[in-house]
Amino acid sequence: EENDSISDMSDPYANDPKRHSILKPASIKPFNAESPEQLLVENFITPNEIFYVRNHLPVPDIDASTYELEIEIEGKAKTLCLSLEDLKQFPKYTITATVMCAGNRRSEMTKVKPVKGLNWGAAAVGNATWSGASLREVLEKAGLTDVDLDKYKHIQFEAYDTDATGTAYGASIPIWKAVDRRGDVILAYEMNGVPLPRDHGYPVRVIVPGVVGARNVKWLGKIIVSSEESKSHWQQSDYKGFSPSTDWDTVDYSKSPSIQELPVISAICQPVPNTTVKVENGHIKVKGYAWSGGGQDIVRVDVTCDGGKTWHVARFDHHDPQTHPQHWSWTLWSCELPVAQGDKELEIWAKAVDSSYNTQPESFENIWNLRGVLNNAYHRIKVKVE
Amino acid sequence: EENDSISDMSDPYANDPKRHSILKPASIKPFNAESPEQLLVENFITPNEIFYVRNHLPVPDIDASTYELEIEIEGKAKTLCLSLEDLKQFPKYTITATVMCAGNRRSEMTKVKPVKGLNWGAAAVGNATWSGASLREVLEKAGLTDVDLDKYKHIQFEAYDTDATGTAYGASIPIWKAVDRRGDVILAYEMNGVPLPRDHGYPVRVIVPGVVGARNVKWLGKIIVSSEESKSHWQQSDYKGFSPSTDWDTVDYSKSPSIQELPVISAICQPVPNTTVKVENGHIKVKGYAWSGGGQDIVRVDVTCDGGKTWHVARFDHHDPQTHPQHWSWTLWSCELPVAQGDKELEIWAKAVDSSYNTQPESFENIWNLRGVLNNAYHRIKVKVE
Ligand SMILES: [Mo]
Ligand SMILES: [Mo]
Repeated sequence: EENDSISDMSDPYANDPKRHSILKPASIKPFNAESPEQLLVENFITPNEIFYVRNHLPVPDIDASTYELEIEIEGKAKTLCLSLEDLKQFPKYTITATVMCAGNRRSEMTKVKPVKGLNWGAAAVGNATWSGASLREVLEKAGLTDVDLDKYKHIQFEAYDTDATGTAYGASIPIWKAVDRRGDVILAYEMNGVPLPRDHGYPVRVIVPGVVGARNVKWLGKIIVSSEESKSHWQQSDYKGFSPSTDWDTVDYSKSPSIQELPVISAICQPVPNTTVKVENGHIKVKGYAWSGGGQDIVRVDVTCDGGKTWHVARFDHHDPQTHPQHWSWTLWSCELPVAQGDKELEIWAKAVDSSYNTQPESFENIWNLRGVLNNAYHRIKVKVE
Repeated sequence: EENDSISDMSDPYANDPKRHSILKPASIKPFNAESPEQLLVENFITPNEIFYVRNHLPVPDIDASTYELEIEIEGKAKTLCLSLEDLKQFPKYTITATVMCAGNRRSEMTKVKPVKGLNWGAAAVGNATWSGASLREVLEKAGLTDVDLDKYKHIQFEAYDTDATGTAYGASIPIWKAVDRRGDVILAYEMNGVPLPRDHGYPVRVIVPGVVGARNVKWLGKIIVSSEESKSHWQQSDYKGFSPSTDWDTVDYSKSPSIQELPVISAICQPVPNTTVKVENGHIKVKGYAWSGGGQDIVRVDVTCDGGKTWHVARFDHHDPQTHPQHWSWTLWSCELPVAQGDKELEIWAKAVDSSYNTQPESFENIWNLRGVLNNAYHRIKVKVE
């Protein structure tokens, strides 16, 4: 997996791992890439090789035999240090959870008005099984007690990936999520049954199911139980939503909460936009995914190709049996859409409904935000039919 | 509070309580009524007298001194019976929680295409403090153990209000909500510091914060820990969402989940639609509420009077300090909207964003459903300005 070309030692990305050629890069340094959309919905569990990669910095090169995870509770002198072997001594939990980038589907929002960010399509998302120790149990081992739950508010994560000045990637989540018995937060050392690939956080990534990818910190180095959120750029001055009328001159990042749980979303992955689709028995087949953060289940996906005059309820092809508030996996759906004779071009829309009956907003105009996050308007694609 | 006119004994509603004349009835028998919208946002805590009433059946006349609440765990022979005095021996909890009818704002959806249901405006909602025993603690007293949590799935509620055939109102909630330490479900005997008024469930109503009013069962008679949902009409064949293309010929109520947590919603309560508003210093003042089910907080309310070209972020006038996942109260907001000279008529829109960054759908066309529930599209009102 290592890059065996002669490294340019002045390039901090020279030691990044090799990637599968099928991934579609959004940027090379740092490496960011998504799967081809049509492949994504072929598997309920996304293979590691095609799982989207969202790196903010160079991939650290960590030796598992010397790896250390430090756990600090603010105000307590003693910290807990765990090796990878120590972590594996905790009971091993496996969950299936979708992880999604806050910028997934940004390329559609950009069409309304430019935004700042990687030009993601609809595949900056994947669903995998993750195995590791329970964050709650590790925190208890570090000395966290019930009394502390009133005292502290956030769990901060510091990573081993750093920028040129030595500043590490960091993020935090609310403490209630970390200790909730239905929160299912794990310190994962396996992804789909094998050790985490380097691009996905080797050797340890925190998986915070139902929460935006940016808080699922990879190459985890330190956990801090704190009264405050992470002070990192990515927690404080990125990954937040704003009003459509907020621009770079007026934005005040302190005024919006950091994104944690993501809203309900869906996307059409087959057919591919702007391709020609063969009509069979008067129908075309449409496939996609739907997901909602916070453990919400997907209860319905509606699809139309006549501008909403007729909505077809999609069939669920893969739907994990867990229910809200622990429904962490996406739902893969398909739908046979009737095509009228003589139709040459179709616009197909999809929208999902989650278990709190939240729905997607219709269009991007009124959810536009300067950073191009939370792109969950109806997915609308055009195809030719023959 | 009793009706002292000579009762018509053949009328099951003859013994209903007297109501405040300010309430705007949607139906008389059963009694259903909402507050005048403009009054609603004058108080963070809705006074009992103007709190909306949603009755499905006649109001039972219960003697508190003989009142009994029975708790049954399916498959266990012994049930627990509690008097009101017994219930008051449990630790007393007080929460502030908004309760909303699933049909709130139905009158707007009806304009797209008729639906079946009471013609509610935007005030079938209220926010109150509720005091009583913890449902979890009462269930533990009845013998519910940790082992049972894997065995049972639902908590059913049976009420003392019955129809002509003796069938009682009933509903259920998932067991995880009932036992969750952050679920805050209480068996309330006080509303805003006084015993529950008859119209609001005297002597005991279960308050399931973050969950649709229909599951906040009034005149509570029996609690059943069960592997199944309530078999009642209101759980099985009502209070569910469907696709806009589902009509009364094609509807299959078994295909949709019962509504529990409600989606994010907001409404403009001042000015009143179709009135004339005085412009002061080039602005008009707009006030309203916003709320989201499931304990989600409201993080932003956007208001526009130019069709979304400019969105103004509303100020929060009353916002309870609890955060997600226990943010049970609504948020009252206001906004000063600039009015261009010469404008004679304005259309004002409001939309809210909750702490999972879910937003309201733009219009009713694509969320229309035959029962007229979940009416959470942008609120849009027209006013004249002078
Ligand atoms: Mo992300
Ligand atoms: Mo309701």
